[in-house]
Amino acid sequence: MPVEIDFDKMMGLAPAIVQDAATGEVLMLGFMNRAAYDKTLATGYVTFYSRTRNELWTKGESSGHFLLLKSIATDCDTDALLVLAEQTSPGVCHEGYESCFFRTWQDGDWVVTDQPVYDPNAVYGGTK
Amino acid sequence: MPVEIDFDKMMGLAPAIVQDAATGEVLMLGFMNRAAYDKTLATGYVTFYSRTRNELWTKGESSGHFLLLKSIATDCDTDALLVLAEQTSPGVCHEGYESCFFRTWQDGDWVVTDQPVYDPNAVYGGTK
Repeated sequence: MPVEIDFDKMMGLAPAIVQDAATGEVLMLGFMNRAAYDKTLATGYVTFYSRTRNELWTKGESSGHFLLLKSIATDCDTDALLVLAEQTSPGVCHEGYESCFFRTWQDGDWVVTDQPVYDPNAVYGGTK
Repeated sequence: MPVEIDFDKMMGLAPAIVQDAATGEVLMLGFMNRAAYDKTLATGYVTFYSRTRNELWTKGESSGHFLLLKSIATDCDTDALLVLAEQTSPGVCHEGYESCFFRTWQDGDWVVTDQPVYDPNAVYGGTK
């Protein structure tokens, strides 16, 4: 039986974890619909479906901080994706950090535990 | 402004990536509701909300393959979680692999690219 990604379980979407192919750092989590998934495989640029804007969104299209697809894995029930990618910039997060997961739970509060790696105002110019 | 996890964006759920705290390998992706999240922090045993069974599910409760919480991070828009955990068993996946992400896209097909690390029939006895 061929393996197919199950986009039906979550109304057309599958969560897609992005992990740095070189360092193993988890950089972000996005959602792909079938079109975003197909575009990612076809172009090699990691592409998501934006739930807030309701459109395809190639990571980096506004910032230049693209993610280049190195490989892609799926899990046992084929409803989630693990994307290994190469960064083309110092940071993935629009807030200036390498990873979007820059806050860690410590002693009852969420604490910023990463250092900024670029100036988001210079890149995004006041927009996201 | 205190940071709060946004469980509302996805009908009460937040995707939770589990990464091996020692090796950096991404082991699985589950979903937490607020009760699962609170139980994970309170007990130190990584706990999810099962979308198929509609109940809390402490990973390992049937297999003994528990995940011990080491630390937890959230992303810029606080709607996803990154759980660093210690494995208490050779493998997290109920199909006998260390990681649930054991299939990789290669040359137009999903190929099993990991080696099994335990016998799932011996652990789950024909059930999941």
